[in-house]
Amino acid sequence: MRQIVRNQLIGLALALLASNACLAQRGGPPPLQSPELTASGDVIFRLRAPAAASVRLTSGGDIPGLAPGAGAELTKNADGIWSITLNALEPGTFRYNFNVDGVPTLDPSNRLTSESNRNAWSLFHVAGKAYMDARRVPHGAVSEVTYYSATLGQHRRMHVYTPPGYESDRNRYPVFYLLHGAGDSDNSWSTVGRAGFILDNLIADGDALPMVVVMPDGHPPVAGTGPNGMQIAEFAAEFAADIKPFIEANYRVRTDRDDTAIAGLSMGGAHTLEISMADLAAFGYIGVFSSGVFSINQDDSFKTEHQAALEDAALRQGLEYFWFGIGDQDFLLDTARATVDLFRGYGFDVEYYESGGGHTWMNWRDYLHDFAQQLFRD
Amino acid sequence: MRQIVRNQLIGLALALLASNACLAQRGGPPPLQSPELTASGDVIFRLRAPAAASVRLTSGGDIPGLAPGAGAELTKNADGIWSITLNALEPGTFRYNFNVDGVPTLDPSNRLTSESNRNAWSLFHVAGKAYMDARRVPHGAVSEVTYYSATLGQHRRMHVYTPPGYESDRNRYPVFYLLHGAGDSDNSWSTVGRAGFILDNLIADGDALPMVVVMPDGHPPVAGTGPNGMQIAEFAAEFAADIKPFIEANYRVRTDRDDTAIAGLSMGGAHTLEISMADLAAFGYIGVFSSGVFSINQDDSFKTEHQAALEDAALRQGLEYFWFGIGDQDFLLDTARATVDLFRGYGFDVEYYESGGGHTWMNWRDYLHDFAQQLFRD
Repeated sequence: MRQIVRNQLIGLALALLASNACLAQRGGPPPLQSPELTASGDVIFRLRAPAAASVRLTSGGDIPGLAPGAGAELTKNADGIWSITLNALEPGTFRYNFNVDGVPTLDPSNRLTSESNRNAWSLFHVAGKAYMDARRVPHGAVSEVTYYSATLGQHRRMHVYTPPGYESDRNRYPVFYLLHGAGDSDNSWSTVGRAGFILDNLIADGDALPMVVVMPDGHPPVAGTGPNGMQIAEFAAEFAADIKPFIEANYRVRTDRDDTAIAGLSMGGAHTLEISMADLAAFGYIGVFSSGVFSINQDDSFKTEHQAALEDAALRQGLEYFWFGIGDQDFLLDTARATVDLFRGYGFDVEYYESGGGHTWMNWRDYLHDFAQQLFRD
Repeated sequence: MRQIVRNQLIGLALALLASNACLAQRGGPPPLQSPELTASGDVIFRLRAPAAASVRLTSGGDIPGLAPGAGAELTKNADGIWSITLNALEPGTFRYNFNVDGVPTLDPSNRLTSESNRNAWSLFHVAGKAYMDARRVPHGAVSEVTYYSATLGQHRRMHVYTPPGYESDRNRYPVFYLLHGAGDSDNSWSTVGRAGFILDNLIADGDALPMVVVMPDGHPPVAGTGPNGMQIAEFAAEFAADIKPFIEANYRVRTDRDDTAIAGLSMGGAHTLEISMADLAAFGYIGVFSSGVFSINQDDSFKTEHQAALEDAALRQGLEYFWFGIGDQDFLLDTARATVDLFRGYGFDVEYYESGGGHTWMNWRDYLHDFAQQLFRD
């Protein structure tokens, strides 16, 4: 009898450990389900906050119909549980927070997160957009990798996608460097950006070749010299001295130009142009998502800095694919168009795609899906 | 002039995108630094919450001196910023949340998180315990891997550590299955558990052999039949049918007994005993951290179920290392002791280590550091 009681005590203690909501609030009410995806495609968000005067659902611009800053107000029931339902949300992966009386709060009922430059978001996925869903196809792996940056004198982190087969076979693969935006971290492309799932599906369908995708951290922890203090030159220097050599030494990647691609979104597009024009012989495929040369309408610094690459016909000839994609609502639309004009003026064969929409992950996932299909075909 | 204005507008828009704190609260005050690690070893936590009546710093039992449930109260200044300083915190990796008027809240100034079974925590690392720091040694990679579980009829996730060299060489490595506890997810061992850094350092120092470490998700999303509804039998079935075969098919691992190890903490220790006794010919090294047979003081079900393995002298002979570690304050101490007695009674050569402390990540990181050194030596 005493042993049964003790076994029940063990069960109780493990139950407390199993429920971290309980660890935060022992003896509190049972955990909520949030977000709940209903069969009809609605998404219900819930937060227990009896003492709050106001709870808002906020996003970083990911959630269609939800204003990025203000968000939408939740409604409180008699139990102190706030809730809101988003009806018939389109398929996709979305980041959100609750704003509780002015405090940005991750959803305590949701363990999934996506890391940004300075904060984290709660994350959820609405299935139904087949190219980014987890389908029954072979899956690659997305690694978190720590490396020492001699340029910066400290440890840094990157994410690396290796395609299905890589971890068991002995082949060399082409390599695609995929850069994030100013608001993001190196974790963003593989969480809200769905990069791993997008590549898995493209490869399974024969629409992309197996490749290693490298997603480094574009924010060196130093003051920057680019527009608004962005570290464009500083990151380009670290990329050339540390990141690309690290990958070539530690992964089975091919290193010739025709097997090397680079692309990036927003700030990562500016990184892409800076890095690729500084070493054009190294990159056969270049993609610029929702971006361009940030200074293009202000001064000629980009042309001056990269004159040699811009004017070298032989180098230009070896560039297999040069693609720009941007939404017609994007605040960088004029910058992208002027950048395309600049490159075309030098004789570059630029593909330019103007989609709908703005400066959002909905577009960047689409662009990755489009761009990756063109890689390493020559 | 208009172009300069526009460039400044681009800078402003990118600045907003760069600061997600601003996305949540556009036009709000500048971001805070939290946590701040001072040169003297103190850690300062800060949260802007002018409307809150109470803000507490809470943990899951990770932070020495901080009560797991109640935590400690922060103090508000005239600007509505709450803060608390933990003095001379010992080195380690720690999870925490703020509890704002009853709502568990991740630190909005900290992007680093650690996933648990049902929620996420904010995470920070205090360097100084050399075996788990990011040192200037070759680093392995920790992957997030999606696989399809035929047993459960759905996609599942695991984390996999591959040692330095694995991603570039063509060798086969021994494999170590490392299981988490009831409160955790498959992300926990590589975040708060520091598994990747612990292995990197051991390998660099010659104290452990290079190995692949597999960290699966021990919570099948089905009702469980173990104590307190834990899914011990259900996970053991999925491990044997899906997880181990997936690894052996998709990674360059050796599959003989002398190159296969398994260990787990708490619920993961119960998983370890269930899995290894069901297929003892497959595992040469077994570790049980802060755990044992949960039913041992209640009934003979474990002995009955595993009688064949318990009584097979030849199988027992081939077990190279069988280790238990538990703290003398752990609520499972009697369970662990009784489990060790059970195995010794059958003639197993069990090493039993009783440390100080309780059911905490401080101990589990130590145990991983101890246990991994013994692996694959025979």
